[in-house]
Amino acid sequence: MGKLLRIDMGAEGGPRVTEEPLGEYEGLGGRGLTSAIISKEVPPDCHPLGGENKFVIAPGILSGTLAAMSGRISVGCKSPLTGGIKEANAGGQPAQVLARLGYAGIVLEGKPKGDELYKIVINKDGVEVIPDSSLKMLPNYDLIEKMKGEYGDKISCISIGPAGEMKLCAASVACTDMELRPTRHAGRGGVGAVMGSKGVKVIVLDDTGMPMREPRDAEKFKEANKVFVKGLQQHAVTGQALPAYGTNVLTNIINEVGGYPTYNFKEGQFEGASKISGETEAELEKERGGEPTHGCHRGCVIRCSGIYHDKDGHYLTKQPEYETVWAHGGNCGIDDMDAIAKLDFLDDNYGLDTIEMGATIAVAMEAGLLEFGDAEGAIRLIEEVGKGTYLGRILGNGAEFTGRAFGVERIPVVKGQALPAYDPRAVHGIGVTYATSPMGADHTAGYAVAQNVLKVGGDVDPLKPEGQVELSRNLQIATAAIDSTGMCLFIAFAILDQPETFQALIDMLSAFSGTEMTADDVTALGKKILDMERDFNRRAGFTSKDDRLPRYFRTEPLPPHNITFQVKDEDLDQVFNW
Amino acid sequence: MGKLLRIDMGAEGGPRVTEEPLGEYEGLGGRGLTSAIISKEVPPDCHPLGGENKFVIAPGILSGTLAAMSGRISVGCKSPLTGGIKEANAGGQPAQVLARLGYAGIVLEGKPKGDELYKIVINKDGVEVIPDSSLKMLPNYDLIEKMKGEYGDKISCISIGPAGEMKLCAASVACTDMELRPTRHAGRGGVGAVMGSKGVKVIVLDDTGMPMREPRDAEKFKEANKVFVKGLQQHAVTGQALPAYGTNVLTNIINEVGGYPTYNFKEGQFEGASKISGETEAELEKERGGEPTHGCHRGCVIRCSGIYHDKDGHYLTKQPEYETVWAHGGNCGIDDMDAIAKLDFLDDNYGLDTIEMGATIAVAMEAGLLEFGDAEGAIRLIEEVGKGTYLGRILGNGAEFTGRAFGVERIPVVKGQALPAYDPRAVHGIGVTYATSPMGADHTAGYAVAQNVLKVGGDVDPLKPEGQVELSRNLQIATAAIDSTGMCLFIAFAILDQPETFQALIDMLSAFSGTEMTADDVTALGKKILDMERDFNRRAGFTSKDDRLPRYFRTEPLPPHNITFQVKDEDLDQVFNW
Repeated sequence: MGKLLRIDMGAEGGPRVTEEPLGEYEGLGGRGLTSAIISKEVPPDCHPLGGENKFVIAPGILSGTLAAMSGRISVGCKSPLTGGIKEANAGGQPAQVLARLGYAGIVLEGKPKGDELYKIVINKDGVEVIPDSSLKMLPNYDLIEKMKGEYGDKISCISIGPAGEMKLCAASVACTDMELRPTRHAGRGGVGAVMGSKGVKVIVLDDTGMPMREPRDAEKFKEANKVFVKGLQQHAVTGQALPAYGTNVLTNIINEVGGYPTYNFKEGQFEGASKISGETEAELEKERGGEPTHGCHRGCVIRCSGIYHDKDGHYLTKQPEYETVWAHGGNCGIDDMDAIAKLDFLDDNYGLDTIEMGATIAVAMEAGLLEFGDAEGAIRLIEEVGKGTYLGRILGNGAEFTGRAFGVERIPVVKGQALPAYDPRAVHGIGVTYATSPMGADHTAGYAVAQNVLKVGGDVDPLKPEGQVELSRNLQIATAAIDSTGMCLFIAFAILDQPETFQALIDMLSAFSGTEMTADDVTALGKKILDMERDFNRRAGFTSKDDRLPRYFRTEPLPPHNITFQVKDEDLDQVFNW
Repeated sequence: MGKLLRIDMGAEGGPRVTEEPLGEYEGLGGRGLTSAIISKEVPPDCHPLGGENKFVIAPGILSGTLAAMSGRISVGCKSPLTGGIKEANAGGQPAQVLARLGYAGIVLEGKPKGDELYKIVINKDGVEVIPDSSLKMLPNYDLIEKMKGEYGDKISCISIGPAGEMKLCAASVACTDMELRPTRHAGRGGVGAVMGSKGVKVIVLDDTGMPMREPRDAEKFKEANKVFVKGLQQHAVTGQALPAYGTNVLTNIINEVGGYPTYNFKEGQFEGASKISGETEAELEKERGGEPTHGCHRGCVIRCSGIYHDKDGHYLTKQPEYETVWAHGGNCGIDDMDAIAKLDFLDDNYGLDTIEMGATIAVAMEAGLLEFGDAEGAIRLIEEVGKGTYLGRILGNGAEFTGRAFGVERIPVVKGQALPAYDPRAVHGIGVTYATSPMGADHTAGYAVAQNVLKVGGDVDPLKPEGQVELSRNLQIATAAIDSTGMCLFIAFAILDQPETFQALIDMLSAFSGTEMTADDVTALGKKILDMERDFNRRAGFTSKDDRLPRYFRTEPLPPHNITFQVKDEDLDQVFNW
């Protein structure tokens, strides 16, 4: 129902702004919209940093309404990290603000002729694209302070740090949170590099004067939202564990089951886990005047985020997420929570994906640049990236690139993207997702940890190959659909376990659009998105050989279970066979 | 007829040497043997630097006989640069010496446990594998001097420089020439990195006391060789142009036709071409007491090599080849012959592929690290590689890697390997070879420049797509076969134009093996090799999408003809359809 804002950054005479109806993309939002536009409009063999690639930003279908949890925003492009299609999403405020400004999506096209850097300002009065060389190489925090100074504190921002300007493949796109801090990142796949290649440093959004988006059937929508919220609040994961300890509640859980990748995926348990667990983190936050239970956007009822203060009680960073704590922590043998929080801040500030950077530092450690456990050294390496030194340019291009620079053999990537915080040998279902997702290794693409470990939405033995393909398939389909709604993925815990909560989501979608939707429609949407994404990758040259874990996960047993990844190649090839 | 020497560098308790008959590989040599072993024995999805990859060295079928021109040696492995199968070959003495020592091939297997570096010494008394940490990081020239000191001046050597030890993807394998200098390199695809991953620094060969290899029909062989030599001597290219000016005779020719890639493939003619032409080079060599007409191995009758002295009349390097002069010269906007010779020396000394490094420096220039034309800067960059600085590790991993480190869009590679010295937009036939060869962009894989420009062996308009697929197909088949004989590829000029010279080659093969061969057998061998290589690449995940030039060769016209590459994708897909 919103418009599509296109900005041709390569137009003669400077950026050209046009608006158009969604047209053939009508009804799509979030990942569905970004993937549809990339798949249709971008030549699959184009250079990811060239003028033919496009950078699409899309709030979800329900973003900007009163629906709880609808604050996710998707960014999409051809990825410079994977060479395939990419959607990465983030929380924070921009999804809702952009949706209320009437936009279903922003498409940055072309390539600027010179090396000018631009800010894009969007408010109720329109769109301005303004060259501003004073923004060059500003870290995200400084940048946002500058924008606040210029445009006031009612804004929200989508931005890149120095990493995106340098077009590094681990560069993220930052979204501001409720405190107007650049802490929520669309991290994966080097999306920040593509925004950088378009010459856009920051998009400043202000929805002052714009109304909440109205569903077709407002009453039904409101009722459904109530049921939905109740469902989230009553589920143990979304009502208790996540609010209390945040995502980092997982450290103890995953370590306990022996699936916590340690020392660059050498072992499945970390002796220092308790020192960096969610329980420890929440305790520290309370002690120091931070906050362990906090939403990342207005309308969040789970509130799994938080605020992390340093030893002196000053703000250091938002509560580091489980994946970040693992990547910079156990995977590097580091058990110093303050050092990890510092690394989280640096990643946010330079605009870097914390998963990719943690995996990269572990590879650098394996290469001998640092000892495992060297927290000060790890901080130094991230600072090299921020400075753009030659070493920084190696590291900032990710784990595979770094491994190649230093001749390292064990590089935990699929389609060039680093594996997240669950070892596929001990959590087979997530291994299937890592291997087959069109996004590269991505836990959010089909979070089989739920059924393998948490026993939410089912119970599938994590150590055996049986049932994992079906599990990953169903989750990937559901996730692609959820990623289109603007809903935070954490609603999945409740909707998988509680039919009435799932029905409430469908009711909201129906009430919003005014057409009666069913669970089958949701499944069909998910399949349609995955088909588009896989078609793009196929045209870009991907084959079933790209749907594989690195060979050493099949040959090198993981302690303590001492098992390898057992799902057969021919079974992996059945994931998308529907 | 020779044996296969296998050395398991990863065996418990240290390297284990075994010898075996060729067995199923009987009758193969050179590229045919290396590609057969790699295709059969190496898992296509293994890490190129891991223990599962193998490094195969094989002289040609006729190497070590009295046949003229039979001094080529092939090295094969899974390439760390392309990720596919690789054969690179070199001149120099080792092919003949190794063949006379009775070996059809050496296979280095496994991965050493520690970081020990080894030398392998092979003579009439047997094979020794000796750890020698004093060799670490020695440049090739120093290394060979050391080996001469230890083993005398009757040896010949196969070695890696610091680049191979650092496992850089542009690392070459050096072979010594008649003067026992490390000047003949199997350059492409990072073969030196794979030798380095096996922990082998140098293979010292001494055939003292070993006889010339004897053909089954010695008389017929000798007669055929006479006809063959006469054919080479009477052909204009092999009898006149190459001896007089070396391969660099091509600079003026290719520049004249507008196919000389200049400023990182931006233009097709270089204003400084005459200053770095073969004519200029030969003149300088004569003036300074070098030598413009010289063989790289005993038994060479073309003598396209030479010796290049510096301004003071001291040896600087062997006569830089056309591809080197172009890569470090016109492609970087450099027209200083002495600087180019210095770069050639540095590449040889560190053990680097001159084509890849020239292409890399041009990409670095496009990234803004240097100005085009900055010869001193280019020398500095190669020295960074030798020192193994972080910048050096970026550059030493080649053009694509460097382009990615610095966010460059125009990177002239196919399958990750840099394009050689002929722009495919102005020389369409070689473009088909670049795109489709299983080796990545490689002019030697099917040298259509002969028919497109030199009008040897046919006449196909270089500016039009018509006829190029058939041309490249036939040349790739013939080349795969020639690369198996141990014959220098330059015999192709004469055998393409003169049926009796081609027949003489077939007669030598027949007389050597004692079985009657025909031209059809040669074709069948070439097809068999290409089929094996493509099968390996297919299993490694390559598709027709990998058989493409970078997109910008289709969209960016090349001056002065202002044309793009016109061969259709569907026609490229017919190259191997026989």
